Amino acid sequence: MQKITILKGNIVFTAVAEKFEVYADSFIVSVDGYIKGIFKTLPETYQNEQVIDHGNRLIIPGFVDLHLHAAQFPQCGVGMTHQLLQWLEDYTFDLEREYQNPEFAEKVYTAFVDKLVAYGTLRSCMFASSSTQGTEILFEILKKKGLGALVGKVNMDTNAPDFIIESTAGSLKGTEYLINKYKDEPLVRPVITPRFAPTSTSQLLKGLGDLAIKYGLPVQSHVSENPDEIAWVKALFNDAKNYSDVYHQNQLFGQTPTVMAHAIHLEKEEIELALKNNVFLIHCPDSNINVRSGIMPIRQYLNMGLKIGLGSDIAGGHKIGMNEAVVRAIQLSKLYSLEHPDDKPISISEGVYLGTKGGGEFFGKTGSFENGYALDALVIEDDEFTSERYSLEDRLERFIYIGDDRNIIARYVEGNAI
Amino acid sequence: MQKITILKGNIVFTAVAEKFEVYADSFIVSVDGYIKGIFKTLPETYQNEQVIDHGNRLIIPGFVDLHLHAAQFPQCGVGMTHQLLQWLEDYTFDLEREYQNPEFAEKVYTAFVDKLVAYGTLRSCMFASSSTQGTEILFEILKKKGLGALVGKVNMDTNAPDFIIESTAGSLKGTEYLINKYKDEPLVRPVITPRFAPTSTSQLLKGLGDLAIKYGLPVQSHVSENPDEIAWVKALFNDAKNYSDVYHQNQLFGQTPTVMAHAIHLEKEEIELALKNNVFLIHCPDSNINVRSGIMPIRQYLNMGLKIGLGSDIAGGHKIGMNEAVVRAIQLSKLYSLEHPDDKPISISEGVYLGTKGGGEFFGKTGSFENGYALDALVIEDDEFTSERYSLEDRLERFIYIGDDRNIIARYVEGNAI
Repeated sequence: MQKITILKGNIVFTAVAEKFEVYADSFIVSVDGYIKGIFKTLPETYQNEQVIDHGNRLIIPGFVDLHLHAAQFPQCGVGMTHQLLQWLEDYTFDLEREYQNPEFAEKVYTAFVDKLVAYGTLRSCMFASSSTQGTEILFEILKKKGLGALVGKVNMDTNAPDFIIESTAGSLKGTEYLINKYKDEPLVRPVITPRFAPTSTSQLLKGLGDLAIKYGLPVQSHVSENPDEIAWVKALFNDAKNYSDVYHQNQLFGQTPTVMAHAIHLEKEEIELALKNNVFLIHCPDSNINVRSGIMPIRQYLNMGLKIGLGSDIAGGHKIGMNEAVVRAIQLSKLYSLEHPDDKPISISEGVYLGTKGGGEFFGKTGSFENGYALDALVIEDDEFTSERYSLEDRLERFIYIGDDRNIIARYVEGNAI
Repeated sequence: MQKITILKGNIVFTAVAEKFEVYADSFIVSVDGYIKGIFKTLPETYQNEQVIDHGNRLIIPGFVDLHLHAAQFPQCGVGMTHQLLQWLEDYTFDLEREYQNPEFAEKVYTAFVDKLVAYGTLRSCMFASSSTQGTEILFEILKKKGLGALVGKVNMDTNAPDFIIESTAGSLKGTEYLINKYKDEPLVRPVITPRFAPTSTSQLLKGLGDLAIKYGLPVQSHVSENPDEIAWVKALFNDAKNYSDVYHQNQLFGQTPTVMAHAIHLEKEEIELALKNNVFLIHCPDSNINVRSGIMPIRQYLNMGLKIGLGSDIAGGHKIGMNEAVVRAIQLSKLYSLEHPDDKPISISEGVYLGTKGGGEFFGKTGSFENGYALDALVIEDDEFTSERYSLEDRLERFIYIGDDRNIIARYVEGNAI
């Protein structure tokens, strides 16, 4: 028995970054969660099926967040005067420790996942904490809500407070336990997650790379966020050619599908390696400003054909809504272009593309409404004044710039309302 | 009969920019709208008065927005790929024209003022449109709501579409009509408002300067936002020494209290003149990024002792909440400091100061909770998790970074709940 979902409304999405596809007052049909087409008039096959009519509202792809720390959610907007390494020490590690307590994990992760749903982030790639049990709780909550997610238990065995690191063997064992429990789930799956090179011994990185290969699992980590961090990595791993190579030597840089957050200060060789290995580089604009890391040269990366997604980077970034990440990516690209006139700013369609299909590609066919894509959709309601006055593209731009969870009145993952 | 207001809660404000004043679980007392003191235990004189107990919530000064365009409110977040002059032509002028229709003005300005109240902007200095009748409607709505505001009918008699400019005499006549009607109001008063130099003839500027002097009224306009605009001004007014001097020659640059928006690309002489004449320079960070104007060198200005306020610049800026302007000012100062290491970023207390007392000074004693200041206050509710875990300063920072109108559960202007 097939499950058919038909939505009606003003359908807008980005099949390519350069422009919006706009289907006013049309039907979008999915069968078993995957899109069969967009129609002005419903084909005969579907005429006896139920239609969910969203009237004059917009129907857009769900947002994709390729980098965030679920465990840092309660810390959004706190300690924002600090730079990266100091911020971790003064605020973050103390918080992440608490997820060893299952009641704490249950309470905070529930609030976090509710917000993720509210703001329309239907697919995400996230760090939990180093607690295996805490991470298991996050898996369960995400499953129950019906979101798509890759979830990583954070691996760290050195260079962080004792109360938050594990032994190398313990870290790998917890990771493999979660892999075995969740690797065959349809929507919420594990991702190999060394926190970042400095908090990993070579043994841990090697063990994690082995797990990635053994189970064919994706990898997430951080790379080249901040000059101090880069210098630290070079001092710690003096046999590596550069920061990226620390991961690459350990089969953690594109040997399986990989996302690397920040990637602001990459050397030429690292860029070539990311390109060759199809590593997704994740632009986290708010975070990069808040902790003073710099501006990713996103136009240059896009011109080179690198794969780019967006991340909220909760809680280096303070806003969970990916519409805000789209806006800030555009804003940063405008500032960057003032100093680099050849690098033209990211347009609104490019911004939306990055926050939907661009990042969505990491999950397969998600983030667009082309045939064969998952029907991951948001229904956007704006005020009467806006809907009367402006074009569908302008209405979408306005939602991206000033909208919030109150404007999102329905959410579908693979055709199921959540 | 005196009107006494007593609020109880966690009181946080900035008497100076460098730090927060924090009074946990205390009483703040105003008599006839002006603050008499903050007390841990209520003095005997007030012990029979009613206390509004806000429990564990924060009580902070209302926000002050020193630059926004009320008429552009419906356009927030639309046309954001344009630069200043093109954006005015393609979107803004058409919208501003509509305020000639009183029903349109009533409907849109009501929605606008409701949002201003919701987001806690209790004092603001705003442009309406060139319609005298439309502007009168805005005055009435603000009065009815009990907000503090300076409102300017926009004066323009050249270099804009015919449908939106007026004759020089007509523009001055409408302005003087509104002055006479509202100059003695307690909270909502007129401000002389040449749109900006390029859309004004010298005759209009002279006439407006004469009105400012005759009635002792404040002045608002734009200065040095964008290199193209500056070049245009120099071509139009070739007897002026610089952009600011166009206003100064016409008694519109500090001869009466003056706010000038943007002020990004000022020449040295202009800075000296602004300093000498106590001109408030208004930093509008979101707008400056959106229309690609550049970054105000705010640390240098502060070091020189210039008076600085913040503006949302609706709708060059897209967010009406002044907490967002505080965040973006901090973020831009961080980016600026990456290139200019001597200019240290704006701290959170400095950001809050700019958005409260810094701008509030333009209205007299507003924006702080020192004795003698107006009791303009917001009551902030955060989630239980935050209030248990973090200090009062951290809670305020978190509200500034991630809060919105839903966190503001009460608002007082001069001691009156609005």
